[in-house]
Amino acid sequence: MNKEYEEEFNKINLPGDLKNLSISECRILCKEIRDTLIKTVSKNGGHLASNLGAVELSLALHRVFSSPKDKFVWDVGHQSYTHKILTGRLKDFDTLRQEDGLSGFCKPSESEHDAFISGHSSNSVSAALGIATAMKLNGDNHYAIAIIGDGAATGGLSFEGLNNAGKSNVNLIVVVNYNEMSISQNVGAIAKYLSNFRTKESYKKTKTIVERALDRIPVIGQPIKNTLKFSKDTIKNSIFQTNLFEDLGFEFVGPVDGHNLKELEDAFKKAKAMKKPVVVQVNTIKGKGYAPAENNPSKYHGVSALKINTKNPYVSKSDCFSTVFGRELTLLADSDDRICAITAAMKFGTGLDKFAESHKDRFFDVGIAEEHALTFAGGLATMGKIPVFAVYSSFLQRGYDQIIHDLAISNTHAIIGVDRAGIVGEDGVTHQGIFDVSFLSTIPNVTIYSPSDYDELKACLSKGIYDDSGIVAIRYPRGNDKDCSLKKDYISTDYELYENGSDVLVITYGRLFKEVSNAYDKLKTEDKSIDVLKLINLSSRDQNMIDRINSYKKVYFFEECYYNGSVSQRLKNDIANLCCTAIYDFVPQATVASSLEHLGLSGDKIYKKLNSEI
Amino acid sequence: MNKEYEEEFNKINLPGDLKNLSISECRILCKEIRDTLIKTVSKNGGHLASNLGAVELSLALHRVFSSPKDKFVWDVGHQSYTHKILTGRLKDFDTLRQEDGLSGFCKPSESEHDAFISGHSSNSVSAALGIATAMKLNGDNHYAIAIIGDGAATGGLSFEGLNNAGKSNVNLIVVVNYNEMSISQNVGAIAKYLSNFRTKESYKKTKTIVERALDRIPVIGQPIKNTLKFSKDTIKNSIFQTNLFEDLGFEFVGPVDGHNLKELEDAFKKAKAMKKPVVVQVNTIKGKGYAPAENNPSKYHGVSALKINTKNPYVSKSDCFSTVFGRELTLLADSDDRICAITAAMKFGTGLDKFAESHKDRFFDVGIAEEHALTFAGGLATMGKIPVFAVYSSFLQRGYDQIIHDLAISNTHAIIGVDRAGIVGEDGVTHQGIFDVSFLSTIPNVTIYSPSDYDELKACLSKGIYDDSGIVAIRYPRGNDKDCSLKKDYISTDYELYENGSDVLVITYGRLFKEVSNAYDKLKTEDKSIDVLKLINLSSRDQNMIDRINSYKKVYFFEECYYNGSVSQRLKNDIANLCCTAIYDFVPQATVASSLEHLGLSGDKIYKKLNSEI
Repeated sequence: MNKEYEEEFNKINLPGDLKNLSISECRILCKEIRDTLIKTVSKNGGHLASNLGAVELSLALHRVFSSPKDKFVWDVGHQSYTHKILTGRLKDFDTLRQEDGLSGFCKPSESEHDAFISGHSSNSVSAALGIATAMKLNGDNHYAIAIIGDGAATGGLSFEGLNNAGKSNVNLIVVVNYNEMSISQNVGAIAKYLSNFRTKESYKKTKTIVERALDRIPVIGQPIKNTLKFSKDTIKNSIFQTNLFEDLGFEFVGPVDGHNLKELEDAFKKAKAMKKPVVVQVNTIKGKGYAPAENNPSKYHGVSALKINTKNPYVSKSDCFSTVFGRELTLLADSDDRICAITAAMKFGTGLDKFAESHKDRFFDVGIAEEHALTFAGGLATMGKIPVFAVYSSFLQRGYDQIIHDLAISNTHAIIGVDRAGIVGEDGVTHQGIFDVSFLSTIPNVTIYSPSDYDELKACLSKGIYDDSGIVAIRYPRGNDKDCSLKKDYISTDYELYENGSDVLVITYGRLFKEVSNAYDKLKTEDKSIDVLKLINLSSRDQNMIDRINSYKKVYFFEECYYNGSVSQRLKNDIANLCCTAIYDFVPQATVASSLEHLGLSGDKIYKKLNSEI
Repeated sequence: MNKEYEEEFNKINLPGDLKNLSISECRILCKEIRDTLIKTVSKNGGHLASNLGAVELSLALHRVFSSPKDKFVWDVGHQSYTHKILTGRLKDFDTLRQEDGLSGFCKPSESEHDAFISGHSSNSVSAALGIATAMKLNGDNHYAIAIIGDGAATGGLSFEGLNNAGKSNVNLIVVVNYNEMSISQNVGAIAKYLSNFRTKESYKKTKTIVERALDRIPVIGQPIKNTLKFSKDTIKNSIFQTNLFEDLGFEFVGPVDGHNLKELEDAFKKAKAMKKPVVVQVNTIKGKGYAPAENNPSKYHGVSALKINTKNPYVSKSDCFSTVFGRELTLLADSDDRICAITAAMKFGTGLDKFAESHKDRFFDVGIAEEHALTFAGGLATMGKIPVFAVYSSFLQRGYDQIIHDLAISNTHAIIGVDRAGIVGEDGVTHQGIFDVSFLSTIPNVTIYSPSDYDELKACLSKGIYDDSGIVAIRYPRGNDKDCSLKKDYISTDYELYENGSDVLVITYGRLFKEVSNAYDKLKTEDKSIDVLKLINLSSRDQNMIDRINSYKKVYFFEECYYNGSVSQRLKNDIANLCCTAIYDFVPQATVASSLEHLGLSGDKIYKKLNSEI
């Protein structure tokens, strides 16, 4: 934001004073906010296109409603940056997604204006219904407002929320922000459905024409009109109440132009006056006001950093675990038509874009619907297919029951690519992949691999598909492989012991192997030596391995996983003197390196611990 | 089934030969099947009303389609008994829900005619879509048929499945069995929505009248009709394509009378001919053909046993853990209006019926929507309410992510009553509550209590609500409290040590405490003594307690929980010589007593193990 404008803006009482701005002042404000969004996201990374699309929407909401008395629940939080700026967080906005800075999602502990936590999709309607219901019980006449994109609306939880909300009798407003895309594309009927409403205006026009025509018809015109209008059965509903949300019990307002402040405010005022559950559909353009993002919003969905005015956001061209997984899977599928790939709206994020091109008929983007993805995989498997579902670790949490019920009980052969396993960095607490080892370990018939480099990843994928039975989860971190000094000249999918004649053994797996290797290098410079055991198959319990471990005087385990249910916790049953360092609480946002440092899991911290104790 | 008829029936080749029966023979068959259902369920327990409602539906499906080439996926499986009888399982039907007998749900390992596992609600559309998709890829022209009740349709997973299926291009038929009730009542808009279609016939009639009227209008009639019929925009959709399923992309057939074989067969044939995703709505009467069940289907939903011709099914009048929980919660809510109760379609099963009567405005039956229940609870809690969600252990698996994301990260205070914890008996493998301790333990900010009797249950509930923070899970078994000889004159919510001067300590919790007490009694008759440690708070790690445990020569832990992630597994880290007996795999159906026996967790087995080792 322009420095001068920013000072001016910081002086006013937010968000209350926004109501006193003229429409032309609002337009200037929107422009300034867009500049701020572009500047900050290009520096800190984050969600650009979706936030650029929600500038007017956010301002209009704050002008019509009174946060924090009215409660805003932003689904996912991809659209909440303007809301943050308008609720006193402009001064800290350059700390967005930084350690100790503003969250990239909504966070009640950050501001009283964030009424509920966001990060995982599709929870807004349920949460807002809970809030609105409690308000009603408390005799409080304020509103709960859920703001949800069309992508998040495909999640089953949204539907459960809508199904319950529609029949409620509370001050709940659901703003559906239709921007013609889920994260990577329109998926499913809901998106198509919403897009029909773009033509709602012409529908209204047609309805009026029909009614007028009927008015002009003598004798029979009026009875037909009456039949259409007042019949108790569905023909009335079918004309005068024609949409999914109305079917679910909501009043419906819109669609309105999401970049027209006047239209937006009128719609919100209308919804507010209804004092019952209302859906307001707002049509917006992702990336509005920034040409590169407007032209290619998918690329600008979540970006690490970008250079303003370049055509494309900065996306590393080098390999990462996701792209290697996707490419290897595509290769295997080239010569095996049983292999099917599934993503829940993360085609690019999980590196499945190449697979989608080469094997279109065997690629399934199910939208934000992790539960369906797993059960659908179960269905494919019963007919001889080999389904591979690539999903972020923290989103896989959604499918815990489906893994048990629809896959594990029948010992179905299915592969889960657990992407973003471990610390994820700036996305923060809601996105950390620190529970998958624990919760997958509580399920029979699941084998968990945690490769530490690309070659192991490929080997695990191939072994999982062709040699193993049951569910095979292969977990790998966000980011790319790094070179390190501890090397073997063969590739294992079980475990590898690096012997240096030490009586100290350090056990680890996955990304931390490289950190341990760094610690090994540093210790070496001080003439201290450690042996290192790298686990790859986290589910095996090899007695030979246990015996070997027990032959060491001191044994350390460093693990990037919540401790309860972890591998180290289980192993401690067999290794009495095992000294474990793992994760003991939720992990806030920071760079991956910084988080590992805080958790005592960086190469440097591992070195320091070992150096002081051996 | 009549003996003579049964012999005749067993001779024919099932299900293929069903196609050769005349309609009048079919009617006789339906009558015989109903007699069999009533006879067997009254003896073995199970789902009566829903199965009585689906007799003609099942027969018609098997006459129109060819199982196992066409794949039947029965949602939940509450309606699949007739399907079992018609696919060669009549001869074993009296083993229904018995150990080593037929499952009360669908089970691929039981019959090739059960295309997918059932038990947990709402998975059928996703599974059938997976099957139909694989068929298409395989060049197989057969059909996948999902059969789902209106209750199961409220689950978010159903919606995710429908949203993906509607846009697919596969031979998928979804039969929606509308019987005017979820498990305990109509919940939400979907049910209301479906009920509108009961009047679809009159809608059709009106539509015809309007069209004919327009035909008779000179000049302007035809243009209006054309506008209505051929306009590309929504007015066409609103008249000619008016329902939720069509909105989602399905063809729609029905509703048809679910007890009229001819209508059913015509509808299925029509759907089959469409060769694309079709929804067929079938209206049925729960309990059809058995007057007591028809009049009161809710009571006959899941019954343990009933006497034919009595007005009410046999439901024990005595207290059980569920009713005690519900009553105590109601009492607490009498004097604390912050307390809200939530159930996911299990008002009676979880003992919340009294609460629903006394505190109607604070009672929420959200339908089969466990995810929503938890997020909704989170919303209530942000406004100062104390939400209490009572749910069966195995269904709570559905909400794993919501517990983490919508409650635990914000350290929200919410109570989860984990009903049916541990072995559940005849419902079998899909319903066993053996994972809750493990998966809840993987989440920060969760306290788990496992009371072993009613007094402890009440004390834990009160402590959870008033003294604890964060998420409090209180788990208790199906069934009722039993007396035992090990007693204390105070009530603890932490742990209790029963000292008898032995150097052998037995640790346990929950229902197994009574089993251990029985073992204690038996050992006593042989002049052997054990000390017993009963845990109540499973999350605490009291160093005093650990030290006390370590003072024993031998320590045994008996636990009704999957071993990975269990309390005993964690405790073994501190108690080197701990000998654990827990659950190591999925547990098949049997009586609770028999399952405990097989698992080495019955009083008798515990006695035998201890007697041989001490």
